[in-house]
Amino acid sequence: MPRVAYLGPEGTFAHQAVGLVRGIPGPIDAVPRRTVVSVVEAVEDGDCGFGLVPFESSVEGQVNLTVDVLVHDAERIQVCEEVVLAVTFGAYRRPGDEAAPTSVASHPVGLAQCRRYVHDLGVAARETSSTAEACRLVAESDEAGVVAIASPTAAARWGLVAMVDGVEDFPGAETRFVVVGTDAAPPTGADRTMFVLVPPHDRAGVLLRALEQLSGRGLNLSSIASRPLRVRLGEYCFLLVVDGHVADESVAGAFDALRDEGYSIKVLGAYPRWGSAP
Amino acid sequence: MPRVAYLGPEGTFAHQAVGLVRGIPGPIDAVPRRTVVSVVEAVEDGDCGFGLVPFESSVEGQVNLTVDVLVHDAERIQVCEEVVLAVTFGAYRRPGDEAAPTSVASHPVGLAQCRRYVHDLGVAARETSSTAEACRLVAESDEAGVVAIASPTAAARWGLVAMVDGVEDFPGAETRFVVVGTDAAPPTGADRTMFVLVPPHDRAGVLLRALEQLSGRGLNLSSIASRPLRVRLGEYCFLLVVDGHVADESVAGAFDALRDEGYSIKVLGAYPRWGSAP
Repeated sequence: MPRVAYLGPEGTFAHQAVGLVRGIPGPIDAVPRRTVVSVVEAVEDGDCGFGLVPFESSVEGQVNLTVDVLVHDAERIQVCEEVVLAVTFGAYRRPGDEAAPTSVASHPVGLAQCRRYVHDLGVAARETSSTAEACRLVAESDEAGVVAIASPTAAARWGLVAMVDGVEDFPGAETRFVVVGTDAAPPTGADRTMFVLVPPHDRAGVLLRALEQLSGRGLNLSSIASRPLRVRLGEYCFLLVVDGHVADESVAGAFDALRDEGYSIKVLGAYPRWGSAP
Repeated sequence: MPRVAYLGPEGTFAHQAVGLVRGIPGPIDAVPRRTVVSVVEAVEDGDCGFGLVPFESSVEGQVNLTVDVLVHDAERIQVCEEVVLAVTFGAYRRPGDEAAPTSVASHPVGLAQCRRYVHDLGVAARETSSTAEACRLVAESDEAGVVAIASPTAAARWGLVAMVDGVEDFPGAETRFVVVGTDAAPPTGADRTMFVLVPPHDRAGVLLRALEQLSGRGLNLSSIASRPLRVRLGEYCFLLVVDGHVADESVAGAFDALRDEGYSIKVLGAYPRWGSAP
């Protein structure tokens, strides 16, 4: 059974996203890991065939931890799939607990995405290592009025009941996850390519020139993140995602042209666009 | 005496950066605040004339919290100065404590930027709310072998002595801070302009077209951050910094042209480039 490492523990949004993966045939053995780095290491080391990590949120933007691991640390891994999950938070407590709220527990991201609700509750907030951990804490608490902000799945896993659903500040939020493995995915006709672009030393206009090479070949940019080269302030590399497969003539041609101009390119993978026909 | 809010507590890198500010005449009353949001609020509310917050690090990139406050929350404030601080961490303990290390305390960013040293110490790490707080903790501890990872300034403030200097993974790191006030700074001939660019709905190539407008007027881009519009995945606005003052014909002309093309632009300020003659 293929082993898929994910950012755990059990019941996280990443764990839910494992259920949406289509590119791995048959039943999956989902293996929780504590950090984004250790998910990627599990795949690099061969302990797991695949790994799944959050890449960007429609509210918080790209996940810097994931971007930095892909930019700086990834050696053997290839992004081979993307998965988009609708993200919603509810307020949950133990069955039978009808007391007025006395404290609220959640992961810092959960607290941040539900700032208004948490503020209106007006009780002390406690940060936990995951929303699943917040649910465990509430389930095992012997105090009344302790509230977890978490996903419906995590709450169900710990037998909690909803006080209010959909308590997030921005309803309709989504998170994009990426699946990493060690092989490239074949072209399907509706693909994306993720790559790191390191500009040549001559800096003026380097991003513009790169975008011109892509646009001149009809390639649409779907995501851009700038990350420091860690040498000097203001020197960046870029993590880009374009529509198209690295095996397509347009993508390969743009990469060749950029390399000729002194850019360095590290291809991190090509994979079917989420929502395209399987 | 002008009051300058900064990301506290006393002894943080932001506190040190207050000492580098040149645009506020006379002695300064430096006022610590607990979060980036509350620094900006102090200025918006009129409680402090100025505020100073970290904007980007040569190792960690743009500070998302600051970028989001500038993009989404800033109403009256204007960025009026930038300040660049060399960042170094040392390992500090109480005078006379010669015991082998038993634990290490620092802010998560300090622990992250000194990962190698912390790993080699091989003792338990404890996260604190600031590096200054780590120093206080060590100074007031009655255990032997407790080590703080902090700036030399924070260590001196708490009377600690250096075990090792310069324990960061990437020596030569710098952090850029910005000073916010309520007035624009006049042109000096060596300025920068910071602005938020929201692309028109027609999305293909919007970033490319914006960069062309800037580049066509000889404007060099010194920083770019993409932040989600919080509506749908893949819909971004951009926080850009270009060389030039918003009152310059080239900058004003580019903004006019972009507005004509349907972009929305919010100018966050113009200020002298760090390192240019005063």
